[in-house]
Amino acid sequence: MSTNRESAISLETMRHSTAHLLAAAVMELFPTVKLGVGPVVENGFYYDLLAPEPITEAQLSKIEKRMREIKNRGEAFRREELPIDGAIVFFKERQQDFKVELLNDLKTKGTTKIKGEEASEVDPTKPAIASVYHTGKFVDLCRGPHVATTAEIGAFKLNKIAGAYWRGNEKNPQLTRIYGLAFRTEAELAEHLKMLEEAKLRDHRKLGKDLELFTIIDEVGPGLPLFYPKGALLRRLVENYIGELQERRGYLPIWIPHITKGKLYEISGHLQKFDALYPPMRLEGEESYYLKPMNCPHFMMLYRSEPHSYRDLPLRYVCTTTNYRHEKSGELSGLTRVRSLTQDDCHVFAAPAQIEGEINLMLDMIAEVYETFQFKNFWVRISTADPEHPEKYIGDRKVWREAEAALSRLIAGRGWKHELGVGEAAFYGPKLDFMAKDVIGREWQLSTIQLDMNLPERFELEYVDADGAKKRPVVIHRAILGSTERFLGILIEHYAGAFPTWLAPVQVALVPVGEAHFDFARKLGEKITAAGIRVQLDSSSETVGYKIRKAEKQKVPYMLVVGDKEMKSKSLMVRLRGEKEVKKMALTSFLKRLKTEIETKK
Amino acid sequence: MSTNRESAISLETMRHSTAHLLAAAVMELFPTVKLGVGPVVENGFYYDLLAPEPITEAQLSKIEKRMREIKNRGEAFRREELPIDGAIVFFKERQQDFKVELLNDLKTKGTTKIKGEEASEVDPTKPAIASVYHTGKFVDLCRGPHVATTAEIGAFKLNKIAGAYWRGNEKNPQLTRIYGLAFRTEAELAEHLKMLEEAKLRDHRKLGKDLELFTIIDEVGPGLPLFYPKGALLRRLVENYIGELQERRGYLPIWIPHITKGKLYEISGHLQKFDALYPPMRLEGEESYYLKPMNCPHFMMLYRSEPHSYRDLPLRYVCTTTNYRHEKSGELSGLTRVRSLTQDDCHVFAAPAQIEGEINLMLDMIAEVYETFQFKNFWVRISTADPEHPEKYIGDRKVWREAEAALSRLIAGRGWKHELGVGEAAFYGPKLDFMAKDVIGREWQLSTIQLDMNLPERFELEYVDADGAKKRPVVIHRAILGSTERFLGILIEHYAGAFPTWLAPVQVALVPVGEAHFDFARKLGEKITAAGIRVQLDSSSETVGYKIRKAEKQKVPYMLVVGDKEMKSKSLMVRLRGEKEVKKMALTSFLKRLKTEIETKK
Repeated sequence: MSTNRESAISLETMRHSTAHLLAAAVMELFPTVKLGVGPVVENGFYYDLLAPEPITEAQLSKIEKRMREIKNRGEAFRREELPIDGAIVFFKERQQDFKVELLNDLKTKGTTKIKGEEASEVDPTKPAIASVYHTGKFVDLCRGPHVATTAEIGAFKLNKIAGAYWRGNEKNPQLTRIYGLAFRTEAELAEHLKMLEEAKLRDHRKLGKDLELFTIIDEVGPGLPLFYPKGALLRRLVENYIGELQERRGYLPIWIPHITKGKLYEISGHLQKFDALYPPMRLEGEESYYLKPMNCPHFMMLYRSEPHSYRDLPLRYVCTTTNYRHEKSGELSGLTRVRSLTQDDCHVFAAPAQIEGEINLMLDMIAEVYETFQFKNFWVRISTADPEHPEKYIGDRKVWREAEAALSRLIAGRGWKHELGVGEAAFYGPKLDFMAKDVIGREWQLSTIQLDMNLPERFELEYVDADGAKKRPVVIHRAILGSTERFLGILIEHYAGAFPTWLAPVQVALVPVGEAHFDFARKLGEKITAAGIRVQLDSSSETVGYKIRKAEKQKVPYMLVVGDKEMKSKSLMVRLRGEKEVKKMALTSFLKRLKTEIETKK
Repeated sequence: MSTNRESAISLETMRHSTAHLLAAAVMELFPTVKLGVGPVVENGFYYDLLAPEPITEAQLSKIEKRMREIKNRGEAFRREELPIDGAIVFFKERQQDFKVELLNDLKTKGTTKIKGEEASEVDPTKPAIASVYHTGKFVDLCRGPHVATTAEIGAFKLNKIAGAYWRGNEKNPQLTRIYGLAFRTEAELAEHLKMLEEAKLRDHRKLGKDLELFTIIDEVGPGLPLFYPKGALLRRLVENYIGELQERRGYLPIWIPHITKGKLYEISGHLQKFDALYPPMRLEGEESYYLKPMNCPHFMMLYRSEPHSYRDLPLRYVCTTTNYRHEKSGELSGLTRVRSLTQDDCHVFAAPAQIEGEINLMLDMIAEVYETFQFKNFWVRISTADPEHPEKYIGDRKVWREAEAALSRLIAGRGWKHELGVGEAAFYGPKLDFMAKDVIGREWQLSTIQLDMNLPERFELEYVDADGAKKRPVVIHRAILGSTERFLGILIEHYAGAFPTWLAPVQVALVPVGEAHFDFARKLGEKITAAGIRVQLDSSSETVGYKIRKAEKQKVPYMLVVGDKEMKSKSLMVRLRGEKEVKKMALTSFLKRLKTEIETKK
């Protein structure tokens, strides 16, 4: 898959060149603009700038037009290396104060890096030298690389303006950030724009409201969704599905509390290292308590609380429990970026020889889950150690080598698409990450399988082997869904809220035309409920048209309108979601159809 | 039930008189002892004292003997009232420094009360006067009342010595606390002692270990149990049972996060009033977050987040979720007193006219649950407003009157034992508390139903009534189990760990005699598992005797030993828990028997 990786890099280069193109166009149109930085982001780029008159959305098409002109000129990207002091003089003359500031930082601190941002403008291997790139008359401080000429830039579109403080600090001036999309071809750009349109319609935040699934409440806090009955049901259906899948394979649910003394995180090392940990609850004359941001340490302690023999292994502990991470409020979004993450967490304690079998069992489950939820297009990133720097990793080298070989063998053996990330393993073990595409082609990271040779060491986990010797088990972390919240967010968009019958919070909407039909509808509802099917009877006094639209908006898979005609008929008049035609069906065959759909999860 | 209440009071009086008897005996034996306080506790009393030589367990029988002597003397309890200054002089002369300290407090502060303790020694209505009680030569500062003479004291036994700081403050001297039991008759005392013996055998902390249910881990914290797979399964069986019971009746599970901004508790009033709240997680430049100690405010917000019509009511929201309360570490015990409480919490939002129907539905469920778990002996405390102080309560008087009448009518209509606590209602609504007796006769408070007219007001909850007017719903809080943890603690002791088949984490223990029988046992296990029954195969290399004892210790309801004989036979040799005889049974009838037990929960 190395071809893919290369093309990913050069697409990134092209996008960065498009950022220069944007800056060049802006400078031609507004010569007094002061430029900030212009990095690549997902699907495109942005450039921050300070304009004497604020630039508005309305001006984007004008800028875009000028960008096209420069592109058509086929200006070369020409690199020039300058001594830092020369570069400072160069940008001072052009009154590019922000660039001068960056260069001064580079000169005095050896870096222009601000926490959380990448510094792409300078070459850290040559700190006394700064590189600039010329594109026609435009010059930018830049580390490169770039495409050869502006003609090589593909399809682009400026799509958003936002405000952003210089270097992310609110004490600094606020700049205008112009976002753009960039792709290799017009067709790819068009496809992406279409996807964005579709994504907007599928936005789980909007659907979450329409479908009465969840809400976020100011007084409770951002990133902390509360679930209405329909959303809570959806959570439970998905969690129970995973639970049943696991238990069938000998995974054992445990239960752990949501808090702990800090001591636990001292042992695990999280107290020193985990950024998103909520601050401690400080008690007088007593140790502080922490809200758990992950479950591993609790699992480790439970294992450690009892002696274990090799006969107990592999021990497969699972727990669906909520973790709390204080993610930055600006990064929160609906269900996909939350502060409350309910993980379908699993830790397997295994002897080294059991690793391959255990991972294979996990792959079985992942395959089954993706099949069920119709994530047909997925690939795997296999992260392994850097063979040239064995000192960066802890644990037995032999266990590493064998585990890495097993990972590759298992994934290849299933014929799954994959990418090898040599040197991308964590210091404590190799890893598999699963990237799945949803219906409109967006890629989501879902499942993770991670070997861990660190926590068993830190918690001094042991088992008595057949030879009577005490040995360390390996821990395998695994989450299939990632988190319930995020997975539901993805699922809502994946299905555009039109869940398959087994997942639909309401499976049948019963719509009596008028009050005269309430009784009949209620009795019909009871029959359907008795078959284990979720029915919602709309007994409001609204018009039948309104009720039908409401059920349609809620994307209920089946709707039964009950009026005089239906009361006289022995059959049901069934409205299928998304279909215009009304189907005539006997109650028994209707129930049979639904039951089959529910059982087969189709 | 007023007779019961009176007799309860006089039993308390008798117990307090026994505390005096203890102090009198101690003073006769050790005249230089300084006395602290001697209040009544459950089933008895204690007295705190400072002895020149520490009093030990060994001396209890000597003290008890002297108590009997004084009892037999039939000394009268004689009350005397003294001006405070006179009382101070009186106890100073007797070098009773602690009594002097109490009297000085009374004189200067008007009370001897220490936070969390009752001051029973003085009469707060007459602060300038202190009462003392004479019993022969012994005199104690005491508010009374007492029995007439020591001869009226029933059966007693000193049963424990502990250390206790004077007035509960660790900066004060440590006193010796002598505990005693006191009952009306020797038979009642004997019964209680027998119950204590039985309780010891049933101690859920011990059984929790033997049955591999849960553990408490230092590094995580006291009061925060972690559950092993068998305990986690037990939790789930009980929670799912309640869940199913509720959903059958139209209760709707919701989901809420475990934390919230403080704002929520400002609205609810808990921030000011709730003692056991964990301290806030303080964030820089952001509001603090709190771990929820109860769910009501979250439920209120969820209701408030959407408009409601009278047609939506009653709206029955439930959520099984863990709350955290920082109870004092000294008060924690196994599962019955924890800091992590998973409540089967329910809040019904109802129009006033729906209260009776809703409570009746709750009573149905409570009756079903007590029947299932074999709590045959229960009674209800009905707490109502004090009719002489209507100003102490908020909400519509008419709603109160009707609700109180409905509560009494419903409980009486079911013929349930009850007690009326006039004036014991919370300021925000009348209440039902359910007290159930376990197998060995201990009484536990389990379920609660509580009307609330305060939170709907504070959260400004509304619904649009049929007449178009906005009205306030009433909230009904309800928990059937109380908390999963506490209920499991009670259940373990109630069943002495010998759970009925439907609740048993392992329903069938498979014990192969030797390795030659492993395969046969495994296949048999698969057949039983396929029938939906929980099997545990003991494939260890221990002796068959050891394996049998292990399954017996774990109180598995059915055991199948598989040896040569069993492999040849077409029948199973079934060992039933607690029975000596081995029963011969065909596999099909064995499975049928278990399935019936599981389905009927018998």
